[in-house]
Amino acid sequence: MRENRLRTLWQRQEAALCAWLTIPSSFSAEIMVHTGFDCFTIDLQHGLIDYQTAVPMLQAISTTEATPLARVPWNDPGAIMKMLDAGCYGIICPMINNVGEALAFTDACRYPPQGIRSYGPKRATIYAGDDYAAAANDTVLAIAMIETAAGLANVDAIAALPGIDALYIGPADLSLALGRSQRTDQTDPVLVEALEKVLAAAQRHGKVAGLHTATPAYARAMIEKGFQLVTIASDAAFLEAEARRVVAATRGEGRAKQAQGPY
Amino acid sequence: MRENRLRTLWQRQEAALCAWLTIPSSFSAEIMVHTGFDCFTIDLQHGLIDYQTAVPMLQAISTTEATPLARVPWNDPGAIMKMLDAGCYGIICPMINNVGEALAFTDACRYPPQGIRSYGPKRATIYAGDDYAAAANDTVLAIAMIETAAGLANVDAIAALPGIDALYIGPADLSLALGRSQRTDQTDPVLVEALEKVLAAAQRHGKVAGLHTATPAYARAMIEKGFQLVTIASDAAFLEAEARRVVAATRGEGRAKQAQGPY
Amino acid sequence: MRENRLRTLWQRQEAALCAWLTIPSSFSAEIMVHTGFDCFTIDLQHGLIDYQTAVPMLQAISTTEATPLARVPWNDPGAIMKMLDAGCYGIICPMINNVGEALAFTDACRYPPQGIRSYGPKRATIYAGDDYAAAANDTVLAIAMIETAAGLANVDAIAALPGIDALYIGPADLSLALGRSQRTDQTDPVLVEALEKVLAAAQRHGKVAGLHTATPAYARAMIEKGFQLVTIASDAAFLEAEARRVVAATRGEGRAKQAQGPY
Amino acid sequence: MRENRLRTLWQRQEAALCAWLTIPSSFSAEIMVHTGFDCFTIDLQHGLIDYQTAVPMLQAISTTEATPLARVPWNDPGAIMKMLDAGCYGIICPMINNVGEALAFTDACRYPPQGIRSYGPKRATIYAGDDYAAAANDTVLAIAMIETAAGLANVDAIAALPGIDALYIGPADLSLALGRSQRTDQTDPVLVEALEKVLAAAQRHGKVAGLHTATPAYARAMIEKGFQLVTIASDAAFLEAEARRVVAATRGEGRAKQAQGPY
Amino acid sequence: MRENRLRTLWQRQEAALCAWLTIPSSFSAEIMVHTGFDCFTIDLQHGLIDYQTAVPMLQAISTTEATPLARVPWNDPGAIMKMLDAGCYGIICPMINNVGEALAFTDACRYPPQGIRSYGPKRATIYAGDDYAAAANDTVLAIAMIETAAGLANVDAIAALPGIDALYIGPADLSLALGRSQRTDQTDPVLVEALEKVLAAAQRHGKVAGLHTATPAYARAMIEKGFQLVTIASDAAFLEAEARRVVAATRGEGRAKQAQGPY
Amino acid sequence: MRENRLRTLWQRQEAALCAWLTIPSSFSAEIMVHTGFDCFTIDLQHGLIDYQTAVPMLQAISTTEATPLARVPWNDPGAIMKMLDAGCYGIICPMINNVGEALAFTDACRYPPQGIRSYGPKRATIYAGDDYAAAANDTVLAIAMIETAAGLANVDAIAALPGIDALYIGPADLSLALGRSQRTDQTDPVLVEALEKVLAAAQRHGKVAGLHTATPAYARAMIEKGFQLVTIASDAAFLEAEARRVVAATRGEGRAKQAQGPY
Repeated sequence: MRENRLRTLWQRQEAALCAWLTIPSSFSAEIMVHTGFDCFTIDLQHGLIDYQTAVPMLQAISTTEATPLARVPWNDPGAIMKMLDAGCYGIICPMINNVGEALAFTDACRYPPQGIRSYGPKRATIYAGDDYAAAANDTVLAIAMIETAAGLANVDAIAALPGIDALYIGPADLSLALGRSQRTDQTDPVLVEALEKVLAAAQRHGKVAGLHTATPAYARAMIEKGFQLVTIASDAAFLEAEARRVVAATRGEGRAKQAQGPY
Repeated sequence: MRENRLRTLWQRQEAALCAWLTIPSSFSAEIMVHTGFDCFTIDLQHGLIDYQTAVPMLQAISTTEATPLARVPWNDPGAIMKMLDAGCYGIICPMINNVGEALAFTDACRYPPQGIRSYGPKRATIYAGDDYAAAANDTVLAIAMIETAAGLANVDAIAALPGIDALYIGPADLSLALGRSQRTDQTDPVLVEALEKVLAAAQRHGKVAGLHTATPAYARAMIEKGFQLVTIASDAAFLEAEARRVVAATRGEGRAKQAQGPY
Repeated sequence: MRENRLRTLWQRQEAALCAWLTIPSSFSAEIMVHTGFDCFTIDLQHGLIDYQTAVPMLQAISTTEATPLARVPWNDPGAIMKMLDAGCYGIICPMINNVGEALAFTDACRYPPQGIRSYGPKRATIYAGDDYAAAANDTVLAIAMIETAAGLANVDAIAALPGIDALYIGPADLSLALGRSQRTDQTDPVLVEALEKVLAAAQRHGKVAGLHTATPAYARAMIEKGFQLVTIASDAAFLEAEARRVVAATRGEGRAKQAQGPY
Repeated sequence: MRENRLRTLWQRQEAALCAWLTIPSSFSAEIMVHTGFDCFTIDLQHGLIDYQTAVPMLQAISTTEATPLARVPWNDPGAIMKMLDAGCYGIICPMINNVGEALAFTDACRYPPQGIRSYGPKRATIYAGDDYAAAANDTVLAIAMIETAAGLANVDAIAALPGIDALYIGPADLSLALGRSQRTDQTDPVLVEALEKVLAAAQRHGKVAGLHTATPAYARAMIEKGFQLVTIASDAAFLEAEARRVVAATRGEGRAKQAQGPY
Repeated sequence: MRENRLRTLWQRQEAALCAWLTIPSSFSAEIMVHTGFDCFTIDLQHGLIDYQTAVPMLQAISTTEATPLARVPWNDPGAIMKMLDAGCYGIICPMINNVGEALAFTDACRYPPQGIRSYGPKRATIYAGDDYAAAANDTVLAIAMIETAAGLANVDAIAALPGIDALYIGPADLSLALGRSQRTDQTDPVLVEALEKVLAAAQRHGKVAGLHTATPAYARAMIEKGFQLVTIASDAAFLEAEARRVVAATRGEGRAKQAQGPY
Repeated sequence: MRENRLRTLWQRQEAALCAWLTIPSSFSAEIMVHTGFDCFTIDLQHGLIDYQTAVPMLQAISTTEATPLARVPWNDPGAIMKMLDAGCYGIICPMINNVGEALAFTDACRYPPQGIRSYGPKRATIYAGDDYAAAANDTVLAIAMIETAAGLANVDAIAALPGIDALYIGPADLSLALGRSQRTDQTDPVLVEALEKVLAAAQRHGKVAGLHTATPAYARAMIEKGFQLVTIASDAAFLEAEARRVVAATRGEGRAKQAQGPY
């Protein structure tokens, strides 16, 4: 089976640099996969993308060695299995609150006897190879998002589950959940403490911790802290930022108004 | 944040006239938004539309001041949040039977601390403005459909929930649920009584009541009764009715066979 | 080969009632094909439709006995042949000015030795039957639009061409071409004379004449005059007209503002 | 209402031959429906297909008398009802483990009082006829997949439910669930016994049993055993098999490497 | 009729800042239209976009006051008229070599008696208003690309044509045509002279000159020279540039490798 | 620049085995590219495919080393250049009748000074590499179809053109053109002589000859004759053939009715 390069990077104690794909286009996806990130997450939750659009985006990613992940809209076994069958090498599941939800999530990611995933990896076999059925359970990643107060409270128990490969923080949601204003690249001590709690839980159980960031500087700081799955913004954020910068530079208005969008 | 014109109409004690969009096309949507309705509901339940098709339809609606709503296929947080992120200003949720289901629905519509909506309003921020995060909870509408026997029995408790903004009757489903033949524009006393019960519950708790109708005459009667969210038929019904009328008038068969379709 | 019902109607000296499809949706197409028209023209010229969208619309038409036609954007052999291969039983070609253009058009519609159509009727064979290759030249219709001053001047010679099956008038374009304001259902004597000239030319050569109309009354009058391919408006026009009528009837503004759109 | 030909075949004690559609294209679907199968299942679970793509595929199927079914991704009422509204004459639901899940499934397939299906059969009425509402509950098929250890243990109780019309075995999943290597056309005694158990349960309660197979020989053997809904492979498997065969025959490598894909 | 803001800017002697849209997505288009450019050109020539994808992109543009243009793949009347009917306020036509080609181009952009455009502005009327037919000829822009040796030689005669509103330079093509290496932001004296020749021809005949640039600095310099339609790069170029910059900044590789792509 | 493997095979005096893609799906394309053909031609002429659908099919092909070609609907520079920009490594142009048409075709395939191709290889650069502009003229293939009586008569002069890389025979069209019944795998002496004439012309001028076949046996015979670009049938033909075979084998009707379709 084709290797999961994220697992390889992590075994080498390196961090994987990820970008979010939110534009429903296999052309923008193909542009992105040549810019140097290690992996790409097709964001079916907040991105403007659904299943049918995601498939050619996965094909675009498959023209390179970059690792394809997907974030599903919700902890729904139908959606999770469909994205795995389409060839994703990992699923990021939002809003995991407790062990029960985490188990339901990992169950959907693994074939029996570890889970309840239904067999039919149509495109996955094309992408990964004929031994997919035998090797998938050890290759595919189940990545639980910790972004609620309950999830944070239960983070140690979630991290301890054998089926969970990584914890991933959604800082905007976690900020809202903790009564802070939603944003990324938090320096608010309440959030910083929360991030460290998630990181510690992951490390205690030999798992990877990851999070979403908005800037290279914050991303680097987080990698230095020990986060090994670090996403910087998204295709939409990149597009908007550069377009605004170009307009401002051309119109001579000095530094462009910084985008404050939800990306 | 861009205003929700339905809230404005309702504060003025006026009724909003709505049309259902069921044809999966942003062109038919753009035609419709110029015909004078106050709001448009993209019907992801019974319409031939899914998420990806709905997005350009929302863009077509956004070329005017008409208010975009969506009916989701089911009380599913993933689907509800995805349509809100895409810029809908209200969600109509089918088949709400009781307070528990109504709470799950409103939870999905609101950011913490009122609910559990996940943050990432990508297109919504473009449509509504940069202050979306702060203002969304007070702007977006959660509209529960009362169309089952259980829902009717529990209507007062559902209407009493702070997160519920309006009750909306699906007359065909409610008819079937009460053992009547499915149809709209009911004059059957059992149904009339049910409609009045829903209306009374809404008014008792300061909420709006709405319903689906098939004709202008019935719609006007319902507005006079006090319903403030009144839908008349759908794009598909309009298309079929006028096409049949034109054929009949041309072929000289007198008045066209009236469409009895499910629209 | 599946019969071309337009040819059958015409042999019986009857008129075919046609509707224009301009909404890019196979669902709106399927609604339309159950409303009683004899044939449907997928309008690739002024409709919001291109090839890929037209294919499922043809499949929707193929669920009934209605005859599928297409209007191509221009006298382009690639586009004409592609629509025939997709299963259209006739092509309406805009803006035929003279015998040379008419010959180029009919050449594209016929296999050798009558024309230069390239062989590969992939979906057409599924739709029409295994004997498509042998019977297509006698089944498929080549319908030339007469809607320019030059076309009108040359109408007799165009009608005389063996490959031309019908002449079809675009009244809006012909009005503009003759210095009149663009509209359909013309009673302007200049236009009426032009229509009669086209009709006479068609009949002189044993061909069918057709035209676009906006209302049943005008359509009936034209059928009585002898036009045998009469289109009334379009899906978009039907949708808009009925939606406006419903809004006006509900809001109590009396008779709805009549749509004056370009449909 | 248009008959459900599967019911007719079964009443005659005949078996229905089915093919799986997994390629998201209405053209490949239209090719398939002319090759002689009795019914076609649009596979929304493991196929590369979602709702929007499925609609024109249903239209392609509707150009013939073949019966359209869909397999949904999961036991989700929203997805089930949406496919029924689109005109499917039966739903195959994966991973039914027990009576509770089976009841939830059949509830979603039937209008009250038998179930909780919501009314709005937009395309279904076009396909089936104006009496759809009255006749749908007796026409549409609810087909439960037995493919887990729990499902196998509870198969008799599931088969006994009045709303269940047929049991359908997914041999690959059932193999995995029973600790065997996933494959179809099983001769492993453990699997053979399981198949027979499902068949016996179905027959005991006057229901139909069906299963997925990979080859004509195995399919025939299963029909002789008494299975009356027998699927052979899929469009994707056919395409791959013949393409490999042609390459091998041309390159002179003797018999083609047999595809071992997941189809 | 809705004003053409480019004409207004030009009457004020101002330059319009334009961006190229090459990603086939109405979401990326909607992001772009909020970044401050005056107009957007849907690039149907070198962009990964065709007609059907362009329509929702036009709807996305129509949610703002930005002016929509399209570059067509070739000087083809069918394609030009289809984009105008879809609501474009100007057409950029590549590879105009001489007066004959320029006349064919402007003919396709204007209704009689100025041209031969066929009447049927379905979406254009929705976008522009009910008086579209009367005002379109004076509103819509015909912009000829000068990017061949022949075009440069004939530029004065082309600029002199009443139907031509602007000349637009494709620097990469013009470089290749003049035996230089293809690139934008040329400082090569041969190219600089060519640009000045086009600008002078435009100004001599009271027309606007425009060109494609790659950077704000060059764009500003060209605006100062007198070019009034200045495009900076494209959505694809913005996306790639920012993504590369972010990766380089995060990985600590210093300044990112500058994209040298064809955008 | 990524090599063109067809050129490599031909330099080694080997034949390239090609399949036609006619199903508009990137999933069926991805299945096909793993079955062992050397190259794949996206058939935009007779296939059910247009530009927008072709792009993700090219991405699917790009996940392997197989060489992507396209057949365009007609000798149209806009369509030819658009497919090259999308990353095709060769264009097959139908119905080349003479040197003039052949020159127009090769002009569209080459940058100046060899041709008039416009610069903007957006996806092509991603696929082929940053040196695309410099190397494209020597890499991309211009393949002229000889399938008319005129083309056959002029075949020597066409083959002599430096810009023509290969001649490709459409046997069905050539049969019709020579007054024979359309079919492939011709043994009719008139056709056999025509094929040999084309082959001889190609070889005389150091070019490659190719043709369409329906079966491995005929393909092998043609390769032995010296044809070096040999296509066998198409995805649609493979799908239909295997489906019919499976049905016949299962129903026990002996050998399946052989498909006689136009694929």
